[in-house]
Amino acid sequence: MAEDNDSLPTLHPVAGLRLGTTCAGFKVPGRRDLVVCALAEGTEVAAVFTRNAFRAAPVQVAEAHLARCAPRYLVINTGNANAGTGQSGLQAAHETCELLAAEAGCDAQAVLPFSTGVIGEPLPMAPMREGLPRALANLDEAGWSDAAHGILTTDTVPKGDSHRLLVDGKPLTVTGIAKGSGMIRPDMATMLAFVALDARVPQAVLAACLERAVEGSFNRITVDGDTSTNDACVLMATGQGELSVERAEGPTFEALCAAVGEVCESLARAIVRDGEGATKLIDVRVEGGRDRAECLQVAYAIAHSPLVKTAFFASDPNWGRILAVVGRAGLEELDIDAVELWLDEVCIVRRGGRAEDYTESAGQAVMSRNAITVRVVLGRGEVSDHVWTCDLSYDYVRINAEYRT
Amino acid sequence: MAEDNDSLPTLHPVAGLRLGTTCAGFKVPGRRDLVVCALAEGTEVAAVFTRNAFRAAPVQVAEAHLARCAPRYLVINTGNANAGTGQSGLQAAHETCELLAAEAGCDAQAVLPFSTGVIGEPLPMAPMREGLPRALANLDEAGWSDAAHGILTTDTVPKGDSHRLLVDGKPLTVTGIAKGSGMIRPDMATMLAFVALDARVPQAVLAACLERAVEGSFNRITVDGDTSTNDACVLMATGQGELSVERAEGPTFEALCAAVGEVCESLARAIVRDGEGATKLIDVRVEGGRDRAECLQVAYAIAHSPLVKTAFFASDPNWGRILAVVGRAGLEELDIDAVELWLDEVCIVRRGGRAEDYTESAGQAVMSRNAITVRVVLGRGEVSDHVWTCDLSYDYVRINAEYRT
Repeated sequence: MAEDNDSLPTLHPVAGLRLGTTCAGFKVPGRRDLVVCALAEGTEVAAVFTRNAFRAAPVQVAEAHLARCAPRYLVINTGNANAGTGQSGLQAAHETCELLAAEAGCDAQAVLPFSTGVIGEPLPMAPMREGLPRALANLDEAGWSDAAHGILTTDTVPKGDSHRLLVDGKPLTVTGIAKGSGMIRPDMATMLAFVALDARVPQAVLAACLERAVEGSFNRITVDGDTSTNDACVLMATGQGELSVERAEGPTFEALCAAVGEVCESLARAIVRDGEGATKLIDVRVEGGRDRAECLQVAYAIAHSPLVKTAFFASDPNWGRILAVVGRAGLEELDIDAVELWLDEVCIVRRGGRAEDYTESAGQAVMSRNAITVRVVLGRGEVSDHVWTCDLSYDYVRINAEYRT
Repeated sequence: MAEDNDSLPTLHPVAGLRLGTTCAGFKVPGRRDLVVCALAEGTEVAAVFTRNAFRAAPVQVAEAHLARCAPRYLVINTGNANAGTGQSGLQAAHETCELLAAEAGCDAQAVLPFSTGVIGEPLPMAPMREGLPRALANLDEAGWSDAAHGILTTDTVPKGDSHRLLVDGKPLTVTGIAKGSGMIRPDMATMLAFVALDARVPQAVLAACLERAVEGSFNRITVDGDTSTNDACVLMATGQGELSVERAEGPTFEALCAAVGEVCESLARAIVRDGEGATKLIDVRVEGGRDRAECLQVAYAIAHSPLVKTAFFASDPNWGRILAVVGRAGLEELDIDAVELWLDEVCIVRRGGRAEDYTESAGQAVMSRNAITVRVVLGRGEVSDHVWTCDLSYDYVRINAEYRT
């Protein structure tokens, strides 16, 4: 989605975390494509990874390393996902960690590798070998903006969010960056997202906070229903600030979750808004369901329907397509006469047919907006949930048809 | 998919069945959009309908009428689906039957109505009122080709198939027509398809034959995963030929099923081949599964992936996308090292990574074909199944973005 302004908000440094970015030449020469993130001693790290059965080599290695010791470095390359690369891909991921460890003087298991880009091609090691020393030489607490650019693939804008606030009267800084923007339907994880804060938080508490934040943000978005082999979301707590969060409950923990959740939600929305070819941000809300599962079942069915998505692209209030999706979403005993359909403030369907007061011009007015809420009221319970998605445009096809050429 | 030649094969008349087609002007003036089908007394009719909860008014009426008496007439209009139209839509469907019954001199319940086209707009009755007498005046056993044109919406070519064969030494004629071509993922039913034969077949036997035929044809195709509110497939046996099929078992029944199945499969393939914007016909086969359900789960996940479909459009052997879909398809305990991936005769993936002997040029050669078999070998069982689908092109977006304008 073309933004009015592709500049990032101010990304406040997080004490104890430095980022270095360089152009290593993995795919396109002269493009920032390698990021190293250095963590001060004592930093706690929690992460969630893709649940795709074909987990990329770096995902496997990062998860194993994280289970063994506290990470000191993250290394992220774009241009090549090192996925579907079998045994040699695992070797490449391990070698990446060893190269960085040798340069930085740490244990290779203290390095977490991340890769994003094309699947199924060997990760070229020469750019890695040449790029790592340059990225390390650039390490800087002010390196967030460069890093936000350095992790992008088909994204058209960098994505970051940052907040400074007081919790229990003590300052807290939360800063995060993320990348989309195709193969997006995170499931317990996301595309690459890196969020850091300066409080002291034990790993178990940090993991609980991350789970909460991801559930309400990255796990509520979809661009095309495709879950990547490389999704990962990392939350780091450097412990260099004044705040300390001891337990995974109570008001201080809630405040931490709210702050992290806000950054994650902002990044998640930014990913959808910049979904491949997207021109509209669509919030699909399903209300009046019996349980959360059926609300999400309907919401995802709508969010994945190519017919609905192309109608949004065309700004065409072709609500019959949405109704048809609700009807095929697999809900048992759905009483279609109880269903209502709203686009923003306009009620379109009541009692199985067009609302008496609906006019095409009112529907058209809503569809012309670039952020729209679709609201389906099932009328059979008290539960609601939602997902964010985007439309399906010519550019989605162009971007994905031309991706490797 | 642009066909070399959009002419239909010879559609043999089925004794006892006459078709009349006219331009009634439901949506586009001068376009054949109203078809009446007259059945000789004694004709048996079986049908399957959409399982979408939002069943269009004509589907509800046709099903109710079929349960009550043997149909004498079918009436099919295109340009308007009479779906999402609530109570007034039901009235319009009933009025359609009454108009035809009055003209033809039969009971209104002996008329089955079918509609296809835009959802959510009132069915205009003036074209119906003016068109029905003209369609009745055209009734002809040779009317199949005109009817094949008269039921189309966004289809670019008419779809029909016809066979004459000997069963038990007696001649059997099976002829059918169908329309696609968007909102296609039939589920126990299909888009509109009408198939007739001249044998004498009791209704229960005919219904068993239809179920078999649909399961192997229309229930194995998907264009965009969207199930229509109006899907219907009708099988008619006029009983005017020499053949008689008494029971839903034995070699004569099997021969009947094979003949009907062949016509249905041909129509189903034609629907996918003419899927909106389609340039390629893709047969997604999943082998070595534990059961049919998991084979279809993987096959549909591949067939619905926008990333896979755009890669086929681009003739790009981006097999990593297929692998990623297999990985997210939700199979428990999938051993990725056992998975193989083939494009036609080319093995691309073995043991979780690229096959040693795979070359990009071999993959490219397959992807340039306009009919391709994707074969996923799960390596965990003996069951296989498949679905047909097509690619996702600019034209899919154009057709569906411009549909109502």
